[in-house]
Amino acid sequence: MSYAPFDWIDDAARRRADAGLVRTLRPRPSAADVLDLAGNDYLGLTRHPEVTSAAAAAAREWGAGSTGSRLVTGSTALHAELERELADFCGFEAALVFSSGYAANLAALTALTGHDSLIVSDAGNHASIVDGCRLSRAAVAVVPHADPEAVRKALRAHCGRALAVTDSVFSVDGDAAPLSALADACRENGAALLVDDAHGLGVLGEGGRGALAAAGLAGGEGIVATLTLSKSLGSQGGAILGPAHVIGHLVNTARTFIFDTGLAPAAVGGALGALRLLRREPERAAGAGRVAAALYERLTAAGLTAVRPEAAVVSVRAPSAESAVRWAADCRGAGLAVGCFRPPSVPDGISRLRLTARADLTDEQIAFAVRTVVATAPVSVS
Amino acid sequence: MSYAPFDWIDDAARRRADAGLVRTLRPRPSAADVLDLAGNDYLGLTRHPEVTSAAAAAAREWGAGSTGSRLVTGSTALHAELERELADFCGFEAALVFSSGYAANLAALTALTGHDSLIVSDAGNHASIVDGCRLSRAAVAVVPHADPEAVRKALRAHCGRALAVTDSVFSVDGDAAPLSALADACRENGAALLVDDAHGLGVLGEGGRGALAAAGLAGGEGIVATLTLSKSLGSQGGAILGPAHVIGHLVNTARTFIFDTGLAPAAVGGALGALRLLRREPERAAGAGRVAAALYERLTAAGLTAVRPEAAVVSVRAPSAESAVRWAADCRGAGLAVGCFRPPSVPDGISRLRLTARADLTDEQIAFAVRTVVATAPVSVS
Ligand SMILES: Cc1ncc(COP(=O)(O)O)c(C=O)c1O
Ligand SMILES: Cc1ncc(COP(=O)(O)O)c(C=O)c1O
Repeated sequence: MSYAPFDWIDDAARRRADAGLVRTLRPRPSAADVLDLAGNDYLGLTRHPEVTSAAAAAAREWGAGSTGSRLVTGSTALHAELERELADFCGFEAALVFSSGYAANLAALTALTGHDSLIVSDAGNHASIVDGCRLSRAAVAVVPHADPEAVRKALRAHCGRALAVTDSVFSVDGDAAPLSALADACRENGAALLVDDAHGLGVLGEGGRGALAAAGLAGGEGIVATLTLSKSLGSQGGAILGPAHVIGHLVNTARTFIFDTGLAPAAVGGALGALRLLRREPERAAGAGRVAAALYERLTAAGLTAVRPEAAVVSVRAPSAESAVRWAADCRGAGLAVGCFRPPSVPDGISRLRLTARADLTDEQIAFAVRTVVATAPVSVS
Repeated sequence: MSYAPFDWIDDAARRRADAGLVRTLRPRPSAADVLDLAGNDYLGLTRHPEVTSAAAAAAREWGAGSTGSRLVTGSTALHAELERELADFCGFEAALVFSSGYAANLAALTALTGHDSLIVSDAGNHASIVDGCRLSRAAVAVVPHADPEAVRKALRAHCGRALAVTDSVFSVDGDAAPLSALADACRENGAALLVDDAHGLGVLGEGGRGALAAAGLAGGEGIVATLTLSKSLGSQGGAILGPAHVIGHLVNTARTFIFDTGLAPAAVGGALGALRLLRREPERAAGAGRVAAALYERLTAAGLTAVRPEAAVVSVRAPSAESAVRWAADCRGAGLAVGCFRPPSVPDGISRLRLTARADLTDEQIAFAVRTVVATAPVSVS
């Protein structure tokens, strides 16, 4: 008998090919050959010389790796500095840095809930939140997208510990969560509110302090935020912000903190460099929003269907997965990289192009991007 | 009514304090003030100038972050280079790099199983494997530690897709999995074998090619390995190695690959620098093993109870969690950093000191380490 335990993988691959849903990696060169409106470098900081120098200097001073768990040898004074400055910037009592935003969400959802808890989760939440819910031992109620009444109802129906969780800005469509109404619903019901501000940090709030600062909720009792250092801060890693006793609890119980190697010094240094630059040049934050608004206005004026952007993500509808792939490829052929979201990466099955505004785009680049997206649009949407 | 949704956290903190199990972060300075036998920098590469230069150069050339998912903008030519060289070095057809070894384990366990699958998991496996099992939708059979007969029995009792998973070298005790016998049990039953070689890479096998190369299993049908770039390679990140069609399947389906930002260029560059250095200086691999054996021989000769090390981890028993903490603190006071594993980080509840061998330790450093551990030992074990 032949031994082929991965045979089933070939069947799955054939089904993907038949459905036109095969993904392949396309490594990019170091010098950009297209205008990038696909990445999440909202403030244009990832290649800023001050940020790359801070990353390089950290590698030289602290080593290429952190060498261990944050609880053993993986906490450097540089990690502590970043945690202090992140908490201070965003208006929280304390912060804890993780190796990724994904790990931060898994940590928050597992360590801040338990057997007898309820998690109320927005249907549009990021995959890392979905996985965190699944990893937790809590009961999970998935509620309709951006619907605080549904959250209130779900919380009311539960007695015992509860936590509502939402993206601040949803990664696929770029729309915003109704944070104030969600906070009210939580307060009324004694529940905690966990907000993933991956796409809000650096773009929303005064000087980019994030969605919770913008909503007047930062540092509030019962409010916890997760961040990623990989978007506006141009680096890698994640963080959780909250009251000091919550952070202490995570240090003691969060498995993706305890059993994971600490974030590499270069990533810590890069994020710290970006954060300091943003403090010095707070106008960058509003810049990303301005570019997003300009993209939205001009694309919809040209007849395309897009979602009004609340931060730096502009989502444009495509008629089908196939046409979205072709549309994105045609853009790339014309010199413009855009994101293409299609099943299974979209919760609702609707494919779209995803354009990200970068604060450092020039008027010419914005005009070129709009021209290219419109000129390559499938007939049925233009 | 007061709003205090995290009240329960204070109760948990009090219980931890009463049990003497409170963990706090102790950020370390940049210049080592103690001899480090606590980190996982087995080959002494994390601060090697060639490795830190490679990390720094990558940050300058490619940016501080990768800017997006590996499927969008997060794959650089540098990622592809590392994947090629890792696969080639370890003897596999293909490789895929993740933001952490934790994420790699979650990916392998969720994407290579399914509803109708069985996962057979060693009771001593790493937390990231435990979490991967929990995240998967498979049935999970936890079998006694290092017991291939138990694995065979569990596989036999299941009909349908199956996968057995084990650490190659167990992170707590440093003992080795019986890989050949496990591979036999899997082959007999048409099951795949997933091996987490976090602590084998760089130490075991010819020139540090890892536990699977050492066992003659690398590149075999049905064999998949997960790695971390954060121990022997002195950097950050993780990888999965296996047949090309398996890697293609992960690209298309693994959530911690698709929905996570790609590994930062500096971490990719650092790992690549370390890998190339190891290829040029293959004797480093055996060096770590030699140091571990010396530590073990001398500690047990002095009357301490330790597990014979199969790689670079030397585990020394402590009579209790409290005495282990005091022992580690006394070592630190004398200038030696050692790991201290205690509940809930140890599956069996037994506390131990954990010493890691570094290939670059001198005879004087080894002698100092042994002298210090023995001199500070609790009365009951010395
Ligand atoms: C909303 C949201 N949360 C979390 C993450 C994960 O963060 P990271 O890439 O740092 O793991 C992402 C994207 O990557 C995201 O879009
Ligand atoms: C056996 C094992 N697997 C996986 C991991 C996780 O790897 P990483 O720290 O790169 O996330 C570790 C330790 O950190 C480990 O010891």
